[in-house]
Amino acid sequence: MRRAGGWIMLGVPKGMSFYDNLKWNADGLIPAIIQQQSTGRVLMMAWMNRASLEKTIETKRTFFWSRSRQKFWMKGESSGHVQVVKDIAYDCDGDTLLIQVEQTGAACHEGYQSCFFRSLEEDGVSSRITEPQLQKPDEIYGKK
Amino acid sequence: MRRAGGWIMLGVPKGMSFYDNLKWNADGLIPAIIQQQSTGRVLMMAWMNRASLEKTIETKRTFFWSRSRQKFWMKGESSGHVQVVKDIAYDCDGDTLLIQVEQTGAACHEGYQSCFFRSLEEDGVSSRITEPQLQKPDEIYGKK
Repeated sequence: MRRAGGWIMLGVPKGMSFYDNLKWNADGLIPAIIQQQSTGRVLMMAWMNRASLEKTIETKRTFFWSRSRQKFWMKGESSGHVQVVKDIAYDCDGDTLLIQVEQTGAACHEGYQSCFFRSLEEDGVSSRITEPQLQKPDEIYGKK
Repeated sequence: MRRAGGWIMLGVPKGMSFYDNLKWNADGLIPAIIQQQSTGRVLMMAWMNRASLEKTIETKRTFFWSRSRQKFWMKGESSGHVQVVKDIAYDCDGDTLLIQVEQTGAACHEGYQSCFFRSLEEDGVSSRITEPQLQKPDEIYGKK
């Protein structure tokens, strides 16, 4: 009997235990793709450590590990733009998560719905913005 | 004047050049999320190096870098399950790609449409299969 994510684990069939199927990288992290369940729009990708995944499962809000800031963070902690978790899938290799959410406000800190707001142009070198900016960053986080 | 991806680059506005906005990790790789454009289903995530991204842009088929096999590969080279590229987006940090494709057959080497065919159950520890297996692996790759 082991504890995982705050639940007591009893009799999960071999090979079907969620945590046992996950592979963490050398830094103890796994990438999590975040998708808006209602629209299918991919919003962002961020990294989770075991503690942030457990907290995500427990609270149904997304928690990540910031590699640049070396910091545990909750999506929306500054902006209020939280993500309510609807489903957590993992891939065949167990080294990537796909998390379905309902997003409040813009997912991107630059004020776009999705962080993937720029696409490559047909010329193969330049890029274009593909969606409207919903808010200016200083409207989300305050002027700095 | 610089060459990028086989095109000659002329007068792209500062900050809007595609390659200049990308950040590669310490191994020279960037993760690419692959999404079925027509349905929004996220199919897989794999890693690209600069050469595989250039080849992807040039041919409109997806090429990756296998970290486990240390090998350049085209999706579908063994299975015939190629991906025709429709759009290549990148995120605000420039460290993740989101590629829209039309997928022939199953994306997953285990015969599922998506590699994300398993999700966490409500108990928080076990997992369930969420989509039908379209083919058995030995029907795709031959018996080993």
